[in-house]
Amino acid sequence: MMHTSTLSDAMKDCIEHCQRCHAECLETAMNLCLDTGGRHTEPEHFRLMISCATLCQSAADLMLSGSAFHERQCALCAVACEACAQSCEEIGGMEQCVELCRQCAQSCWTMSGGTPRDRAAAGRRPAAS
Amino acid sequence: MMHTSTLSDAMKDCIEHCQRCHAECLETAMNLCLDTGGRHTEPEHFRLMISCATLCQSAADLMLSGSAFHERQCALCAVACEACAQSCEEIGGMEQCVELCRQCAQSCWTMSGGTPRDRAAAGRRPAAS
Amino acid sequence: MMHTSTLSDAMKDCIEHCQRCHAECLETAMNLCLDTGGRHTEPEHFRLMISCATLCQSAADLMLSGSAFHERQCALCAVACEACAQSCEEIGGMEQCVELCRQCAQSCWTMSGGTPRDRAAAGRRPAAS
Amino acid sequence: MMHTSTLSDAMKDCIEHCQRCHAECLETAMNLCLDTGGRHTEPEHFRLMISCATLCQSAADLMLSGSAFHERQCALCAVACEACAQSCEEIGGMEQCVELCRQCAQSCWTMSGGTPRDRAAAGRRPAAS
Repeated sequence: MMHTSTLSDAMKDCIEHCQRCHAECLETAMNLCLDTGGRHTEPEHFRLMISCATLCQSAADLMLSGSAFHERQCALCAVACEACAQSCEEIGGMEQCVELCRQCAQSCWTMSGGTPRDRAAAGRRPAAS
Repeated sequence: MMHTSTLSDAMKDCIEHCQRCHAECLETAMNLCLDTGGRHTEPEHFRLMISCATLCQSAADLMLSGSAFHERQCALCAVACEACAQSCEEIGGMEQCVELCRQCAQSCWTMSGGTPRDRAAAGRRPAAS
Repeated sequence: MMHTSTLSDAMKDCIEHCQRCHAECLETAMNLCLDTGGRHTEPEHFRLMISCATLCQSAADLMLSGSAFHERQCALCAVACEACAQSCEEIGGMEQCVELCRQCAQSCWTMSGGTPRDRAAAGRRPAAS
Repeated sequence: MMHTSTLSDAMKDCIEHCQRCHAECLETAMNLCLDTGGRHTEPEHFRLMISCATLCQSAADLMLSGSAFHERQCALCAVACEACAQSCEEIGGMEQCVELCRQCAQSCWTMSGGTPRDRAAAGRRPAAS
């Protein structure tokens, strides 16, 4: 009677992690970071947080839409989440953001079907050779 | 030490309701509705679901960003959620979507600071007189 | 043979103005403002630019989707564009952003069907009376 | 005096192609496809159009935000645009969408720094070996 989602449990978890990470990165950047300034609004860090929020939303939307491209978007989202977590950790005072980025990265790796070897390679641009 | 959100509890609830409603509308439209066809892909209904998903995301993002425009976006989001809930109810088989739209509408009305009189008026275009 | 858009010319113009304003606000905030700092990353100003970008995208998407809510979203978008233009003008050095915000505001007012009286009222929360 | 964009001409072109393709795919799906039904609302095709619109917006936003992840997002966007163009071509009557998807794919490939070998590989999931 009631529509029951046909998405797998792993995908539902990943969507939720992406939505939480999107919210945390956007809220932290637009409130804590802007209000604090200094290293928090250093362009490279701030861009990482906004990029991470953008990619989390896009990954969630592709999963929700039944898109054939969700795996590849999740792989890129995982890379962004890990970079964002590391940047937040170095600056400090953003432990919840670090934690939600790491959870999302893990969930997105699982969803992308990636192996540890893919994961190691993902930090680099795809080689042409 | 850890960044603690400075958003009010009511706003945090509203963000969560908007994210859930966005996810439910997008997933239902792009899976159940497309797979079922018939009344489920009737243009007016399908557009309502996608509009509702768009407005929920926009309302959530404005709240997360500390935007001065979040109240007015929440007021419009509430109108869309109520219209979407009604359309889903008439077609049937989308009870979870109906419920999440109604929860989101309620939460957005509270956030918009609207009175019942505003609420009654919101279904109409703002009168010039 | 070829699909020809059935959108009105006024709506096509408004969509284009919204997309240009979205791009200019996002690019300016994430590049010029972050690289310059000072008044450019003052929270109220920076949030206005990101809010304006969000509302322009949402207005464009609702128009493209045939949404019944596009008029009311355009009315809110116009308010945000005017506020963003004024803030950019006061800080200075963002003339192109000021110009694109003002063009978008004008186009969105036309699309919203608003009268000058609506426009004057739009800066305030909608009155219940 | 006036802020002049520091983005390269190639990137500005790519942003514009992504915005045009986003608009065309979303408008066509939500108007022509929904109004026509039949093959136009067949789930695989409709999802491709919405996925393409999502990825174009995300690629544009990452470029506008100065994100380090824009090249990889453009590579994925190009794959989606080519798939969407092919699906629209097979169904017919969407020549403008086909053309804008192909232009966007070409522009995104250039932006991604991809070689023809990358391009051939992009249709497949990244190999672990």
